[in-house]
Amino acid sequence: MTTGVPDPTTLRVRYDEVRSATERLTEPLSPEDQTVQSMPDVSPTKWHRAHVTWFFETFVLADVVPGFAPFQDSYWFLFNSYYESMGPRYSRPDRGLISRPGAHEVGAYRADVDARMRDALVALDDGMLEKIAPVVELGFHHEQQHQELLLMDIKHVLSVNPLRPVYSGVPAPRTEPDRAGWVDVEGGLVEIGHEGAGFRFDNEEPVHRVWLEPYRLADRLVTNAEWLEFIADGGYTRHDLWLSDGWARVQAEGWHAPLYWSELDGVWFEHTLHGTWPVDPGLPVSHVSYYEADAFATWAGKRLPTESEWEHAARGLPVEGHLADTETFHPRSAPAATGGLRQMYGDCWEWTSSAYLPYPGFRPADGAIGEYNGKFMSGQMVLRGGCALTPAGHARATYRNFFPPSARWALAGLRLADGGAGQAAS
Amino acid sequence: MTTGVPDPTTLRVRYDEVRSATERLTEPLSPEDQTVQSMPDVSPTKWHRAHVTWFFETFVLADVVPGFAPFQDSYWFLFNSYYESMGPRYSRPDRGLISRPGAHEVGAYRADVDARMRDALVALDDGMLEKIAPVVELGFHHEQQHQELLLMDIKHVLSVNPLRPVYSGVPAPRTEPDRAGWVDVEGGLVEIGHEGAGFRFDNEEPVHRVWLEPYRLADRLVTNAEWLEFIADGGYTRHDLWLSDGWARVQAEGWHAPLYWSELDGVWFEHTLHGTWPVDPGLPVSHVSYYEADAFATWAGKRLPTESEWEHAARGLPVEGHLADTETFHPRSAPAATGGLRQMYGDCWEWTSSAYLPYPGFRPADGAIGEYNGKFMSGQMVLRGGCALTPAGHARATYRNFFPPSARWALAGLRLADGGAGQAAS
Amino acid sequence: MTTGVPDPTTLRVRYDEVRSATERLTEPLSPEDQTVQSMPDVSPTKWHRAHVTWFFETFVLADVVPGFAPFQDSYWFLFNSYYESMGPRYSRPDRGLISRPGAHEVGAYRADVDARMRDALVALDDGMLEKIAPVVELGFHHEQQHQELLLMDIKHVLSVNPLRPVYSGVPAPRTEPDRAGWVDVEGGLVEIGHEGAGFRFDNEEPVHRVWLEPYRLADRLVTNAEWLEFIADGGYTRHDLWLSDGWARVQAEGWHAPLYWSELDGVWFEHTLHGTWPVDPGLPVSHVSYYEADAFATWAGKRLPTESEWEHAARGLPVEGHLADTETFHPRSAPAATGGLRQMYGDCWEWTSSAYLPYPGFRPADGAIGEYNGKFMSGQMVLRGGCALTPAGHARATYRNFFPPSARWALAGLRLADGGAGQAAS
Amino acid sequence: MTTGVPDPTTLRVRYDEVRSATERLTEPLSPEDQTVQSMPDVSPTKWHRAHVTWFFETFVLADVVPGFAPFQDSYWFLFNSYYESMGPRYSRPDRGLISRPGAHEVGAYRADVDARMRDALVALDDGMLEKIAPVVELGFHHEQQHQELLLMDIKHVLSVNPLRPVYSGVPAPRTEPDRAGWVDVEGGLVEIGHEGAGFRFDNEEPVHRVWLEPYRLADRLVTNAEWLEFIADGGYTRHDLWLSDGWARVQAEGWHAPLYWSELDGVWFEHTLHGTWPVDPGLPVSHVSYYEADAFATWAGKRLPTESEWEHAARGLPVEGHLADTETFHPRSAPAATGGLRQMYGDCWEWTSSAYLPYPGFRPADGAIGEYNGKFMSGQMVLRGGCALTPAGHARATYRNFFPPSARWALAGLRLADGGAGQAAS
Repeated sequence: MTTGVPDPTTLRVRYDEVRSATERLTEPLSPEDQTVQSMPDVSPTKWHRAHVTWFFETFVLADVVPGFAPFQDSYWFLFNSYYESMGPRYSRPDRGLISRPGAHEVGAYRADVDARMRDALVALDDGMLEKIAPVVELGFHHEQQHQELLLMDIKHVLSVNPLRPVYSGVPAPRTEPDRAGWVDVEGGLVEIGHEGAGFRFDNEEPVHRVWLEPYRLADRLVTNAEWLEFIADGGYTRHDLWLSDGWARVQAEGWHAPLYWSELDGVWFEHTLHGTWPVDPGLPVSHVSYYEADAFATWAGKRLPTESEWEHAARGLPVEGHLADTETFHPRSAPAATGGLRQMYGDCWEWTSSAYLPYPGFRPADGAIGEYNGKFMSGQMVLRGGCALTPAGHARATYRNFFPPSARWALAGLRLADGGAGQAAS
Repeated sequence: MTTGVPDPTTLRVRYDEVRSATERLTEPLSPEDQTVQSMPDVSPTKWHRAHVTWFFETFVLADVVPGFAPFQDSYWFLFNSYYESMGPRYSRPDRGLISRPGAHEVGAYRADVDARMRDALVALDDGMLEKIAPVVELGFHHEQQHQELLLMDIKHVLSVNPLRPVYSGVPAPRTEPDRAGWVDVEGGLVEIGHEGAGFRFDNEEPVHRVWLEPYRLADRLVTNAEWLEFIADGGYTRHDLWLSDGWARVQAEGWHAPLYWSELDGVWFEHTLHGTWPVDPGLPVSHVSYYEADAFATWAGKRLPTESEWEHAARGLPVEGHLADTETFHPRSAPAATGGLRQMYGDCWEWTSSAYLPYPGFRPADGAIGEYNGKFMSGQMVLRGGCALTPAGHARATYRNFFPPSARWALAGLRLADGGAGQAAS
Repeated sequence: MTTGVPDPTTLRVRYDEVRSATERLTEPLSPEDQTVQSMPDVSPTKWHRAHVTWFFETFVLADVVPGFAPFQDSYWFLFNSYYESMGPRYSRPDRGLISRPGAHEVGAYRADVDARMRDALVALDDGMLEKIAPVVELGFHHEQQHQELLLMDIKHVLSVNPLRPVYSGVPAPRTEPDRAGWVDVEGGLVEIGHEGAGFRFDNEEPVHRVWLEPYRLADRLVTNAEWLEFIADGGYTRHDLWLSDGWARVQAEGWHAPLYWSELDGVWFEHTLHGTWPVDPGLPVSHVSYYEADAFATWAGKRLPTESEWEHAARGLPVEGHLADTETFHPRSAPAATGGLRQMYGDCWEWTSSAYLPYPGFRPADGAIGEYNGKFMSGQMVLRGGCALTPAGHARATYRNFFPPSARWALAGLRLADGGAGQAAS
Repeated sequence: MTTGVPDPTTLRVRYDEVRSATERLTEPLSPEDQTVQSMPDVSPTKWHRAHVTWFFETFVLADVVPGFAPFQDSYWFLFNSYYESMGPRYSRPDRGLISRPGAHEVGAYRADVDARMRDALVALDDGMLEKIAPVVELGFHHEQQHQELLLMDIKHVLSVNPLRPVYSGVPAPRTEPDRAGWVDVEGGLVEIGHEGAGFRFDNEEPVHRVWLEPYRLADRLVTNAEWLEFIADGGYTRHDLWLSDGWARVQAEGWHAPLYWSELDGVWFEHTLHGTWPVDPGLPVSHVSYYEADAFATWAGKRLPTESEWEHAARGLPVEGHLADTETFHPRSAPAATGGLRQMYGDCWEWTSSAYLPYPGFRPADGAIGEYNGKFMSGQMVLRGGCALTPAGHARATYRNFFPPSARWALAGLRLADGGAGQAAS
């Protein structure tokens, strides 16, 4: 899934960067915080920390270290996420029932694997290095995905606590939205998918041609202010705006606002990693499901973009405004309009109207690594861009994120599309 | 959803044909058979009969008959399927709890609406007729859809009965499969969707352009013989063949063969509308889910076609071999190979790799009729062609059927695809 | 479970009486009515009819008929209720999924077994007769239990239908309650349980001694008028009146009145076998659970009687006022007060405060018949007396009926107790 | 619920003893251990610690401290267990989702309430002291109940962890059972219930008379060796031994041995607070449900005692062999036989055949304290004696413990009864 010549020093430096970034995220968290699983989709923080470590131990150390023995036999069972090829694994919805190893012991596990990884990267001959480097790099990106998930998950964990706990920080000053503009895109027979140098997941390949009719994209994300209008106009009570599955969720789960919103005496508040604050009208709406995004677009007389439309429009744009610059862990209001697309990365993942399916000619990798993406290509929708929790270096135009259409705990929002229409189905 | 000048006599004749076809299907069924709902997806036969009648009463008679009054107030509540615009409705999974009206009373309801429909079609002036004719025609196709569903549903109802009941008929003589061939298709920038004269559902519109790379389709459906090989090769026990959601179903529901298969002393039997018989190797496999179809294709080193590939290849082929000719209510073995595509209609609906999504530029109709298709465009997969239960005149190249990927009670099978690849996602 | 010398003619006459009484109950019911199972506790009418037939076939004919063969092999599987000893059986909550055999075919099954039973009762020698007569008599009482259940069940089946169907008849004229009186009972070391001649179930044995302190029983059942006061006083909203399990039900299932009551424009209506009518204040309240009965007693500052208190007070009272006299299928208002106990049989089963447990020294019968009562002695409460659906000859002072404390579809009400207190627990 | 003159110094000393005993139990537990809730019946350790503190704060400090303010408003919501009178409360099955307050913060809460309690006990005038002393004493016994539950709960929490964690200690040397003897008891009209001095819960009152026929009790508990015989004889596969509800559990949950037993290569192991060890044949069987206890008794041709039989036989026996002496936290083998009853306290709670119902004349206390016992008198069975986790001073002959008949995580076993039979139902 990568190209280029492996350089052991670069790999080692990069390894340390990625691994220490994970640990930094846990600094505000107590051992108890790291233990709780607030719903089946969420994993405990210490599980994330151990699982990404297990990835390096299993897919790198076990392959390259002579006489390899695992740090702890039972960890192979506990910290396998979904790799059927790696044998039986601990039940996912029960990850919060495991008190030991504790946060501190997980730290010891991490330290042990880190030491062995550093040794291994030095000791490998060129052939071995060339073979294993792509897996190591995959491990970096895998851990970055979990950094993002760890933050989404701890946000949910803290949200179910009536004490309204704070992860860290304070919110930015309140903002007001500007007016959205439209960016026209010509379309035609375009190329979609990742090619050339640089890391990509297997689901970004192969490059293939797609026909796009001319279309328009909103130049910024839908804002909280616009979402308040949607609510005020009966958005959550008008069945005609909703997909049938979405309407069933609205009724069964009592949806009446984005996941983390609550109303008190007529004022809407939002649970964030900084605590609970009044909803900021200028920020992009976040923590809405695909069903809600689709209903909003219908209400607005527009639609969601296809993933091809998004990717084609994003080609050539700088991937700017990332987490590393700000560490606010929260979407920001749009920068001043320039006639081009704004907020493409670094605020909210953007729901598209595309189901998550294999690209034509897609082939998963051999072995357990092949379970990384392909087997999830059913029942989910594609999101594009990135969000405020996405690590620096982890966003690109061809990146295909995916969640079930009902998922709300992901940091996801939406951008409207319109016009001659790309290709919604094939 | 239709074009052309309405002709009252043709409409009336067609009305009688469609309506009497429904009643003919119920002849082998007792009042008790018509009452049972064997699972939430299934509806009782008498509910189908009443619901399609409610459709004409609600969307035609209520609109065109001066001083209209419903046959029975509470039927509007009982026999609404999913039209939120038409007010509250009886809970779908509880349709089997309603003993009254009985099968005979539903017959009286049908007779009453039929009489009023015949009167109405005669009495309408041209303007009214032009306005209502498309709805009447939609009612025909709606009732034909329910004829097909009625048969799928009663097949399931009878299948849960340990007495192994027969709906009607006897199976055809046992057959042996021939060898599958491949048909090459050139691809390019092709037009997809229905245009010109003739009825179509709203989801077949608008016509739009799709880019297809060259591809190949198997000239016939996958057979029971081939499915037996899949089973023998561990098809239901090898996780690497399956989508993650599919594998979860295999394990949770103990799938180990198509829905209606059971093994007794080493011989596979199949529940059919003719009773329970040994599996016929020459017939196309049926009652498999999308997950199973996809796993089979992976096992075979091939893939499922996209719906665009299927439609493009089907253009111009005669819609032949339909139910009306044979009334066997069971898929048939493929006719002798001719170098072209076989079994495209009239045997098994064919799973495609396409998610059921709106065509670019799709707009649902105004009002309650707009709930017909659009709101279901989430979480389902497209099937193309038709099946042995499809009424004559109800199949066409552009028809988009859809079911959830886990559905097995639909009469669905699969055709393999291969080659340069169409477009699996956009 | 019985004593006395068997007389073949009496047995045959009695057989015909009991069997034809069952069939009379089905006269108002269509085949569809007889097919539906409205909840897991309910059985379809035709299942009841077949199951009681299976009882005679299995426990009598199979034992005494040389060369016995069952009417239909699969009926042994379909119509076994809960006899583990008789092999696997069809899933109880799925009884409503079985359309065949239909009501008419069940009639044929009944006729066949009836003919064979009549032949068998004539043909048996004295030794065989003496051995089998107790089982035949058990079969009579078993069928009478199912006659009562059949009516409770069809009442529920019809209640879920928005058409508000009628089983038969019309309600009696509206009544007003009189004032309840109290009957004092001395207590002491009393004998409880059935002894002497006459049929009894095994759970009524053995006779044993119980110490009762002096107590009082209300001379009539609690009325609808009193229940309306309970509701008006917040009976369903005051947690302090309820057992914890009861309060959980109130909240989870939204209980706010007896099962079949509904309020329309401030007037309470009740679904009955005669249709839906305004609640009659003079009738005993019915279709309340044990939890509700207990909450009412707490609200009234009284308690429910123990089963020993009820039985001791009922000793020597005539079992009068039964169904056979009136066939109203509905509780009646209390007859004029005489200083003694009223409404002891024939209106509503009366919840007691006694858990359904074995009498000291209880031993279930050998073989499958031993599964009749003993294995259900857990998690249920005892009810005493009888109800408007109880067949003539089926009520007696020692009869122990039982239902789970949450059951509401049984025709059950309550009588208050007070005073020095019997023995609520041991 | 208590008698006698309150003495502030004694109360304060006792307060410190009880409170510090709780904290000692948590010493082997990490913050993560204290956070997990392994099933809905289990509460996290830190929840127990906070809830018993809330009890003193709510029912004592709030009543007696002028200008009282709670330590933390939201704790009143989080740490209310089931007191409806005290307002809304946090959902019980979700106690494991709360990471904050952490174990350390709960310690601060305890320290704060302890300081205020000590001050209050000194400052109260005699009238106030007399009024509040019974509640304080209730708080002691309440906390002792939770000490026992805390250990049962943490045992379960650790049991779901594949790492097989140890709470503390090592097992005693392996033992062999001696032969059980029988102790005959005469019966007659006996008094049951607590009277005279000393603490009792409200459910132990009032004293009342019960008639007991002569009976026999086994002089020791059923052993693991006997349970292994039961298993070997098909105890978990013979439906005829089981109550219907019990058999349903056996099948639905796959019961085939006591809760914490697992078989490896033909050897049975048991999870204990000391870790996982081979089953010791001489110890009493533990962690069996009422259903299992009843099935065993049926298999043995005996029965369980009633709670009256147990209490009558226990009168006058010393309450010896308690936890405080040994701190093994594990049942012990029976001491040498003396002709009297052995193992009556301090090993395993003993299932009786009595449903948990109010004694005749029972009245719960006024106010929230009245919710302590009475509202749970439905659907549960009485256990008598005490267990290895019961704090010293917390066991007595009249103590009525209770659990649902399916509960297995309680440290419960059984003692057989036989003979003329007491009174199993009333």
